[in-house]
Amino acid sequence: MTPDEFRTHGKAIVDWIADYWEGIEDHPVLSRVDPGWVRSQLPEHPPEEGEPFDRLLGDVDRVVMPGITHWQHPGFHAYFNTGGSGPSVLGDLLASGLGVQGMSWATSPAATEVETLVLDWLAELLDLPTGFRSDGPGGGVIQDSASSATLVALLAARERTTGGASNRNGVRQGTAPMAVYASEHAHSSVEKAVRIAGFGSAFLRTIPSDDDHRMRPDLLAARIDGDIANGLRAVAVVATVGTTSSTAIDPVARIGQVCADRGVWLHVDGALAGTAALVPEMRWLLDGLEFADSFVVNPHKWMLTTFDCSAFWVRDRADLLRALSILPEYLRTEAGQSGAVIDYRDWQVPLGRRFRALKLWFVIRWFGAEGLRAMVRHHLELTERFDAWVVEHPSYERAAPTTVNLVCFRHVDGDDASRRVMDGINAGGEAYLTHTVLDGTFTLRVAIGGERTTDRHIDRLCSLLDELA
Amino acid sequence: MTPDEFRTHGKAIVDWIADYWEGIEDHPVLSRVDPGWVRSQLPEHPPEEGEPFDRLLGDVDRVVMPGITHWQHPGFHAYFNTGGSGPSVLGDLLASGLGVQGMSWATSPAATEVETLVLDWLAELLDLPTGFRSDGPGGGVIQDSASSATLVALLAARERTTGGASNRNGVRQGTAPMAVYASEHAHSSVEKAVRIAGFGSAFLRTIPSDDDHRMRPDLLAARIDGDIANGLRAVAVVATVGTTSSTAIDPVARIGQVCADRGVWLHVDGALAGTAALVPEMRWLLDGLEFADSFVVNPHKWMLTTFDCSAFWVRDRADLLRALSILPEYLRTEAGQSGAVIDYRDWQVPLGRRFRALKLWFVIRWFGAEGLRAMVRHHLELTERFDAWVVEHPSYERAAPTTVNLVCFRHVDGDDASRRVMDGINAGGEAYLTHTVLDGTFTLRVAIGGERTTDRHIDRLCSLLDELA
Repeated sequence: MTPDEFRTHGKAIVDWIADYWEGIEDHPVLSRVDPGWVRSQLPEHPPEEGEPFDRLLGDVDRVVMPGITHWQHPGFHAYFNTGGSGPSVLGDLLASGLGVQGMSWATSPAATEVETLVLDWLAELLDLPTGFRSDGPGGGVIQDSASSATLVALLAARERTTGGASNRNGVRQGTAPMAVYASEHAHSSVEKAVRIAGFGSAFLRTIPSDDDHRMRPDLLAARIDGDIANGLRAVAVVATVGTTSSTAIDPVARIGQVCADRGVWLHVDGALAGTAALVPEMRWLLDGLEFADSFVVNPHKWMLTTFDCSAFWVRDRADLLRALSILPEYLRTEAGQSGAVIDYRDWQVPLGRRFRALKLWFVIRWFGAEGLRAMVRHHLELTERFDAWVVEHPSYERAAPTTVNLVCFRHVDGDDASRRVMDGINAGGEAYLTHTVLDGTFTLRVAIGGERTTDRHIDRLCSLLDELA
Repeated sequence: MTPDEFRTHGKAIVDWIADYWEGIEDHPVLSRVDPGWVRSQLPEHPPEEGEPFDRLLGDVDRVVMPGITHWQHPGFHAYFNTGGSGPSVLGDLLASGLGVQGMSWATSPAATEVETLVLDWLAELLDLPTGFRSDGPGGGVIQDSASSATLVALLAARERTTGGASNRNGVRQGTAPMAVYASEHAHSSVEKAVRIAGFGSAFLRTIPSDDDHRMRPDLLAARIDGDIANGLRAVAVVATVGTTSSTAIDPVARIGQVCADRGVWLHVDGALAGTAALVPEMRWLLDGLEFADSFVVNPHKWMLTTFDCSAFWVRDRADLLRALSILPEYLRTEAGQSGAVIDYRDWQVPLGRRFRALKLWFVIRWFGAEGLRAMVRHHLELTERFDAWVVEHPSYERAAPTTVNLVCFRHVDGDDASRRVMDGINAGGEAYLTHTVLDGTFTLRVAIGGERTTDRHIDRLCSLLDELA
């Protein structure tokens, strides 16, 4: 494709995206295709000759679009929202156009230095403890997802606990099993990481939570002490600020004290709710973060940034390097050897890395701190509006406290009624919501973090729920 | 950013990229900034108010560009090239604009079905064994990198070997250590994965290679048999088709026979060189792939696709699912429960996933099979041209056989002379190459896989090398 062809087709794609965003409400939020339909519309074999660009875009309209569940639709309330603002898309486009690999500082110094700067900016915006900033032993890095961030946190904790012996000799559970602790409502990525890192899910200690689904620090302390008394090593605790099911906020300060007293790594998963700390009135939910060894928040969730962009900080980057650094001859660079620079390949699982900092840099600069705060406050207001409606409605009841931008509720007639409501909403095409199970009960979740979601959409959702009640 | 602002700024970025590509030879390939320079040019604190888009682009020109090492420059011969063709950038842009999460089939059926289709297409183009196609028990998936692909392959092998016990109870090396085997020239990601998965690098058996840096199957067999006799479990062998240092091609068929006889998982890492199999005359390098349990090739290296896009296939997807599947209530979907669809979140480490198949789909359709083959042949011809020049030159000698698109060579006067040549080339700004060490000798590497690299650039590189000889 020549540069001029790129200009033509690139501008067509830009217009296509702008048209898509303008008309996004014309699509049913949840795709209606049957399994196999998309594939059945496409040739089973690759083309021998190249095809004109128009034909590609035609197939996007004809085949791909019916198979899209529209995460950017203002009626998308499923899971947690994912970002997709204009400046983030354009920052990402620029990264593709530059096509650089930021695995080492030398392979594109700007990719490393803008990333370090932007993570320091974000630490300031979220008012994180200064220990996470890069001017001391700590620092931030962009991971693809909170799952990967949690994995590398557990690997760093594993190596710290064993003095590097696990990397060298393997996870010798037989000699002194290592345990990891998280609430029963922690994200499934914690168990996945516990399996991957070789601890074994039997050594993931699931700590019970209180009536509001927050980890019980007293039971955590008791479990750790019991394990230690039995000869186990307590490696890490994962506290969650905003659980996936109900955005419960684990009491980080009290959990942190338990960890500090016992020398256990504390990883705080604020993938969704950490973004709320952009506004001072919500900063309380990170209280106690000064105890944390590592912290993750996903700008690709509630901070207007297109996937993937998970911001991860550690208090001591040497812990990460000890766990993940490998230096074959072919990756050796003079700058890297000097110790004056960061080589981010040693902060993550993959070697290669995209210039992802550009999109986050564009988001922070385009919206500014006040724009980001306005976005968070807008979603909190919409959530309050919806929450109040649920509380008032005779057929619905709240299933968990509303802490940030998610409302958990159910039909008073029980699981079947709740499920019927969910299916009805999702079949209608104007909104999409998903479920969880809380305290054994089928629970509806309405996440409110879409860039285009307004009062009107929330009111319409209330009307639909009222009709289905 | 309104859709209309997005149209304006988006088209400006498209033009910026086209201008960049047109003028790319005006930049020195290797960035010349000192550590800290990029950051020193930017404000230490995030902006309170949003900034106009022009100011962002202005800083890209003023601050980011001097800090870029230009991987798309026709004189980039370092490491291995990374793709960045127009259609791949536009497919990726479309993925950002759609902003969907393809973690489950239901969360965007098209993201899953196009990915499965495109990986089947690619399996056909590379003439992979039919067992890797999705119409049987196998199938393909896009990973972010070969590092991650190798990690999930080793996890699947670990769980197959232990019957799922490692996931449940941890890697109990104490009871029966598990070993992984790779050549001394295997990529560093193998050791990284061996550490992460809890085997321990002491249990990575480094198998010596022959004079051409290919793994010795006889020594592999002896090592496995010795380990088994000593009570260890042989989990997996990683064979490399195109090692990083010198693109040596491990004898996959003979290695595969060793694995088959002993029930050991065979993972084949064809990250770079696998792409050569697009042309029938190079298909020999995948001979023996019918023995492999898993295989990876990186379209983001030599197949014109912007990072990240690593194509990974398994012969039995149930092995992957057993290793990586977790299903919390909040991710449960009707389609997923039916078993009729693929939920790709269970094929990888992260939960979230971008619609990466679009860029690979665009690449295959825009270039067509014949366009992709022409690209490979063009690079192979350029490599032959450069290789012949090296062989003829009195001051240089080849340091390894040239198998695909990499030439390894050195100065006949020894390491210091070779290093001086490399530094001279890289300081000049017209080309960039990196080094490795082969047989204890400092070795220069010239990788030839850039979309814009032509005869003229190779001839110019030869002139520069001649001047520095």
